Amino acid sequence: MPDYLITPDILLYVFDMMGIIACAIAGTLLAQHKGFDIAGCILVSMANAIGGGTLRDMALDRHPLFWMTDLSYVLVITLTSLILQIFFHLYHKIDTAVKVFDAIGLAAFSVIGFKVALAQGALPVIAVMMGVWTAIIGGMMRDIICNEIPMVLQKEIYITASMAGSLVYLCLDHLGMDTGMNDFIMLGVIFAVRMLAIRYDWHLPSIRLVK
Amino acid sequence: MPDYLITPDILLYVFDMMGIIACAIAGTLLAQHKGFDIAGCILVSMANAIGGGTLRDMALDRHPLFWMTDLSYVLVITLTSLILQIFFHLYHKIDTAVKVFDAIGLAAFSVIGFKVALAQGALPVIAVMMGVWTAIIGGMMRDIICNEIPMVLQKEIYITASMAGSLVYLCLDHLGMDTGMNDFIMLGVIFAVRMLAIRYDWHLPSIRLVK
Amino acid sequence: MPDYLITPDILLYVFDMMGIIACAIAGTLLAQHKGFDIAGCILVSMANAIGGGTLRDMALDRHPLFWMTDLSYVLVITLTSLILQIFFHLYHKIDTAVKVFDAIGLAAFSVIGFKVALAQGALPVIAVMMGVWTAIIGGMMRDIICNEIPMVLQKEIYITASMAGSLVYLCLDHLGMDTGMNDFIMLGVIFAVRMLAIRYDWHLPSIRLVK
Repeated sequence: MPDYLITPDILLYVFDMMGIIACAIAGTLLAQHKGFDIAGCILVSMANAIGGGTLRDMALDRHPLFWMTDLSYVLVITLTSLILQIFFHLYHKIDTAVKVFDAIGLAAFSVIGFKVALAQGALPVIAVMMGVWTAIIGGMMRDIICNEIPMVLQKEIYITASMAGSLVYLCLDHLGMDTGMNDFIMLGVIFAVRMLAIRYDWHLPSIRLVK
Repeated sequence: MPDYLITPDILLYVFDMMGIIACAIAGTLLAQHKGFDIAGCILVSMANAIGGGTLRDMALDRHPLFWMTDLSYVLVITLTSLILQIFFHLYHKIDTAVKVFDAIGLAAFSVIGFKVALAQGALPVIAVMMGVWTAIIGGMMRDIICNEIPMVLQKEIYITASMAGSLVYLCLDHLGMDTGMNDFIMLGVIFAVRMLAIRYDWHLPSIRLVK
Repeated sequence: MPDYLITPDILLYVFDMMGIIACAIAGTLLAQHKGFDIAGCILVSMANAIGGGTLRDMALDRHPLFWMTDLSYVLVITLTSLILQIFFHLYHKIDTAVKVFDAIGLAAFSVIGFKVALAQGALPVIAVMMGVWTAIIGGMMRDIICNEIPMVLQKEIYITASMAGSLVYLCLDHLGMDTGMNDFIMLGVIFAVRMLAIRYDWHLPSIRLVK
């Protein structure tokens, strides 16, 4: 698509980096709260930001891992974590931005994980799972390292938003939708579901008829 | 073996699925206890049921992972978890059945892990370890995600039962035992050791001469 | 180098085993403190001693894993753990030795992880990370399994010592230093930084300008 300045691939990469930044911030915040030192905060940020993609690539036997050839990931995470550690007192000014970045990251990570799995020849059901993995396992790793119960498994619309996007993609793809456009729609669906969940405090229930 | 209706492979697959169901139930129960939502319970069930085999396949470089080509695993886990979440109040009626399924699963997972490792050319000692991995790492993942100390590492005969079965297999194989029959014997040994351990409250001690 | 009795490779292997022993001891001590049984203590020792290298090899797609072909690792860990469990009351007599072994292990694991990554064609930045992974992820696994907050991420000079050694190696390599000699220097730098950190109670700070 040489006629356009911004191709879907470039946009997805930008969104991916916004998600990486949101994850690095979330990782650093929790790690600082736990009293980790500078290097410990960076390591937790890395687990949060690239842990899900790493496990996805390992599960799909996709080598070298995505962050081993494109050093932007490691660089962006390290810089984000260091800047936040230095200017920690400014965090409350970026609180809302982080939530938006986090939702963008959820969407971008899901799209990337889902499409990478399809490209590796995975079945659609497995690709949906890989989208979820990429989006949430980093956050689970952060919480497990910091000895907390993973937030994404509790009453927060994360897994559901990721799956909704993948299912919309599969339906539209079946109906003959153009792939580049479909990527955008999937991104939009996940972002919208997540932002609406925050705005209206949506929760997936625990089903339990009788205690 | 076309003359038999039930071949060792089919029986092992059935036992494997019984273990998967037991793991999905154990995962869902703990996840519900921790207040996870519907999707969170399913994810913990998956970690419990296929986490050990996934790590085994990754360690042995065996791709695609076993649950990526046979969707029965993901389907059985999801359905088991959903049914249990809906009919949670009936759980006490299946309590004993779950213990038996769990012991069958321990046996089936150990045999599968052990034999997969041998088929990949691993040394016997490593194959014994892979049997143990397959059988217990899923439960460890469940406990780690739910922020509990892994039950299988405490005073419960799990690792020992798995190793006992593998060692009996290796001895009999050395003596020229038929492979299909040996699979059954290994299954039986592990199941028997585990059930006896439950029945008579056997524990492996902590060795500690002086506190 | 047939003229020398002790080649750099042999020395690195000996140092590696000293680190394995230190990790097996640390793993067993924490596992016993948590009340794990004999088999549970051995399993935690293994996670501590070979967990980092295992994840490194998986990330670099290096198969079979290092401990699958050289059974010394599994053997040394199992024996160390069993001996410590039996003679637990003698532990206070080896307390200082374990600290030294641990520092030697940090150095050896870092050198091995760093060099393995370079040999697999990883970029230098990634090789530095792989040195850190090999050195610290085992200890993180131990703490995560035992439901503790990972010690290496807190105020202890571990990650920094490992990175310092790698950076010195890269600088000297750039200046044309002989590889075998450079391995020794890297080992020495990491060991020295770690021992000095213990001796003078050095800590990497948490940066936090305003609480």
